[in-house]
Amino acid sequence: MTGSLTIVGLGPGTADWITPAAQAALDIATDIVGYGPYVDRVPERAGLTKHASDNRVEVERASHALQLAAEGRTVAVVSGGDPGVFAMAAAVFEALEAGEPGWRAIPITVEPGITAMLAAAARAGAPLGGDFCAISLSDNLKPWEVVTARLEAALAADFVICLYNPISKARPWQLGKALELAAQCREGRTPVLFARAVGRPDENLRILTLTEAVAAADTADMATLVMIGASSTRLIARGAEQPYVYTPRSVTKSPCVTSQGRT
Amino acid sequence: MTGSLTIVGLGPGTADWITPAAQAALDIATDIVGYGPYVDRVPERAGLTKHASDNRVEVERASHALQLAAEGRTVAVVSGGDPGVFAMAAAVFEALEAGEPGWRAIPITVEPGITAMLAAAARAGAPLGGDFCAISLSDNLKPWEVVTARLEAALAADFVICLYNPISKARPWQLGKALELAAQCREGRTPVLFARAVGRPDENLRILTLTEAVAAADTADMATLVMIGASSTRLIARGAEQPYVYTPRSVTKSPCVTSQGRT
Repeated sequence: MTGSLTIVGLGPGTADWITPAAQAALDIATDIVGYGPYVDRVPERAGLTKHASDNRVEVERASHALQLAAEGRTVAVVSGGDPGVFAMAAAVFEALEAGEPGWRAIPITVEPGITAMLAAAARAGAPLGGDFCAISLSDNLKPWEVVTARLEAALAADFVICLYNPISKARPWQLGKALELAAQCREGRTPVLFARAVGRPDENLRILTLTEAVAAADTADMATLVMIGASSTRLIARGAEQPYVYTPRSVTKSPCVTSQGRT
Repeated sequence: MTGSLTIVGLGPGTADWITPAAQAALDIATDIVGYGPYVDRVPERAGLTKHASDNRVEVERASHALQLAAEGRTVAVVSGGDPGVFAMAAAVFEALEAGEPGWRAIPITVEPGITAMLAAAARAGAPLGGDFCAISLSDNLKPWEVVTARLEAALAADFVICLYNPISKARPWQLGKALELAAQCREGRTPVLFARAVGRPDENLRILTLTEAVAAADTADMATLVMIGASSTRLIARGAEQPYVYTPRSVTKSPCVTSQGRT
């Protein structure tokens, strides 16, 4: 008997950002598989077995989930945000590709979720109003040279740049370097968001200038989504309250030229 | 008396992808403002006034919504997908910036939604497993030269590329040009998704090669999200069923070099 596997996006944290489809997948699961803090978000109930694992064992965790499904279980692999964006979906398909041929008969579904950049943008206003990109700053899985080449291309294209996994104890300097690179191309007053734990009780949204962000890089952490504005991204003041941040939909100027002279 | 304005993401179309928070904003609204087909998705009820408008009048629609809120109404501006991604949020802040100073006292909230690329990715597997970008192909609001410069940068960076607004009657050739540009940099067998109306009854997901996509560009339409794989994006076969598409999380090679010699 073959079970099934659904890779479920839990959204940023608050229950009212979990889609009904994702909730339904959790409700029928016999087994929840995932990184501990995400598994903890799913309430206990009779008949539900939870399999929590540490960070950075994504493919082992995915293989375990596929094996449970092959044994007939109804498995939900849980991710924060959207499972397709720097989360468990790719790990499951990597495990599937490398794993037992029989696993390919398992029905696999991905249930999308609100990813961190959408939540951060919503809280700030409309900073993603133009073209944008999403880059994981982690160099666990790609050389740092690839990260910087991608950052340079994104700066040349004048994308709004969303940085996932910006900093950790093992990677303390990468965010500072990335922001310094941005400051070589974009003006110092360009808005930068440090959006921490959006949708959770300890949510904290900071709107900095790029100059301030370079100096404050070490105040970000793994729960922070960093968003670097495009050249047109700007603030709308509203008295004592936090300004709105938005990127106009129209573009009139060409992409910027970096100090290296690349276009 | 000041009302309020919430910019609500309805997701791609199916009700079970609308977040509870977005639904709650619809439930308390006195006025729904938006492009006709999105307004139509909200059921009629006593006390609810609907204001449907044509496409391409976003700022006028946004100003009307702000005026209603200033008059004390509880307004929901509705967008498909996520309101912050090529949708109504930026238009509302543009109207706010240019509009009456008193409007800045209106409480404005953005309720995020599942944007088309997340829905398309979920249906296909995990094509967004690596770094990626989102570009609107519409040149209504930016010169075509900016679009091509951004595409070239995204190709050089080896991003997975999501194309919103790929084609319309007024813009029949842009998608073909964009795919030809991609074919100058990426291999002909690179997977390309044409994900049409994901989450709606007429959903249609096509997995093409880049070579096939160039030839089939005119089979896309305004309801299609086009996703061009990175150099590492690949398929997992599963017999008679549609293969999965996924992008591994690891990157080993450098960004590609285009035929123009740019890196």
